[in-house]
Amino acid sequence: MRIRVYYEDTDCGGIVYHSNYLKFCERARSEMFFGKGKMPYNQNLGFVVKSLNADFIKSARLGDELIVKIEVLELKKVQLTLRQEVFKGEEKIFSMDVKLGFIDFERGKPSEITQEFLEVLECKR
Amino acid sequence: MRIRVYYEDTDCGGIVYHSNYLKFCERARSEMFFGKGKMPYNQNLGFVVKSLNADFIKSARLGDELIVKIEVLELKKVQLTLRQEVFKGEEKIFSMDVKLGFIDFERGKPSEITQEFLEVLECKR
Amino acid sequence: MRIRVYYEDTDCGGIVYHSNYLKFCERARSEMFFGKGKMPYNQNLGFVVKSLNADFIKSARLGDELIVKIEVLELKKVQLTLRQEVFKGEEKIFSMDVKLGFIDFERGKPSEITQEFLEVLECKR
Amino acid sequence: MRIRVYYEDTDCGGIVYHSNYLKFCERARSEMFFGKGKMPYNQNLGFVVKSLNADFIKSARLGDELIVKIEVLELKKVQLTLRQEVFKGEEKIFSMDVKLGFIDFERGKPSEITQEFLEVLECKR
Repeated sequence: MRIRVYYEDTDCGGIVYHSNYLKFCERARSEMFFGKGKMPYNQNLGFVVKSLNADFIKSARLGDELIVKIEVLELKKVQLTLRQEVFKGEEKIFSMDVKLGFIDFERGKPSEITQEFLEVLECKR
Repeated sequence: MRIRVYYEDTDCGGIVYHSNYLKFCERARSEMFFGKGKMPYNQNLGFVVKSLNADFIKSARLGDELIVKIEVLELKKVQLTLRQEVFKGEEKIFSMDVKLGFIDFERGKPSEITQEFLEVLECKR
Repeated sequence: MRIRVYYEDTDCGGIVYHSNYLKFCERARSEMFFGKGKMPYNQNLGFVVKSLNADFIKSARLGDELIVKIEVLELKKVQLTLRQEVFKGEEKIFSMDVKLGFIDFERGKPSEITQEFLEVLECKR
Repeated sequence: MRIRVYYEDTDCGGIVYHSNYLKFCERARSEMFFGKGKMPYNQNLGFVVKSLNADFIKSARLGDELIVKIEVLELKKVQLTLRQEVFKGEEKIFSMDVKLGFIDFERGKPSEITQEFLEVLECKR
């Protein structure tokens, strides 16, 4: 997924504000769903971010075109770990391992990841 | 209401990104409710922004402490017009007249502003 | 310019937070430059938002694909007025007239809009 | 440091959008400087986020009042590791260990943390 850096993404240090890389990664996760005509939640079911480890390697600037890549690291019954990397051209500038919990929002409890979501993520058990 | 300018509020031009003044004004409107132990919506009722006229007079920078002032310009049955001004010290740096519609979210229709909301806004009919 | 609505753009009312339409419009203005391999500022010269009138007509939701259109309303020596409209499908959901001042950032003063910027904006004097 | 949750902080899931906890933590770091009448950078020197590990334990909602706590975990010559925790009342809802590099922005290189910054952070070598 391609992402352009706009004024709103930068701060007065002249570079992309650090937490915005998490936004870019979330856009890429959601776009996996939107690109297939689906929503990233279904009735009461969907993913929430449980934890993440992020490395801020280089900075990006206004007008940069970034690429967000997604790789599945681990699939469990009720959670999923992704590696998401942001590239500026050939250079990796950000990397994050993010653990997502699959939640039944109505009951506020973990739930088994459904087949529908696994298909969007192109995962097999 | 006092608002501090943080990195997140600025852009790479070194100043507060223009649309963030609208956020500051919304915080001040919501704080009228929170400060009285109330929520800015009640069941299905609440305000939405219908239109606004904004003047960006001067710019603010990282670390500035701003004051947001609110004045009721006009109260109608289903809508309210406020003047919101942002000051840096004595100097007015932003001014906005904003028209808010009172909405029944469930029916998606305008609704008469309730007494409860008028009290928070310290308005009388 | 096409814009997708992501989680970050929405608020707990379930719709796009009002000030984010201003962000979408700024993206579209900047993309006119980026799309031509240029930056929206040149050395010390560039546009700043002076004032705007905005109408919030309908709301947008997570996953919506929006189109931002730009039309030049008025071109003066040191300022430019644009009409920017956001559409969801055929339906106009947001409209804004925005006055941009052309500024010499170093001197903090208005400056004559240069030929280079007029070409990007496809304006003629 | 106290932080109120406003509409802008939430998403259409009804809770605070995950990356905004990083913003809240950055506000608390910057406020250590502002509260002492200082800026979080000095000429060409300041901190940048190098890496972080974050746990999203519980969610916060519109109107919640949150507390951000900061503890120094490790101080090295050119970097600093902080633990930042966000509480809602007595309950910890977010925790992050963040490694900050001290940078000479002009040369784009790590630099020794100066005495002035150590004093603001109330750290001793």
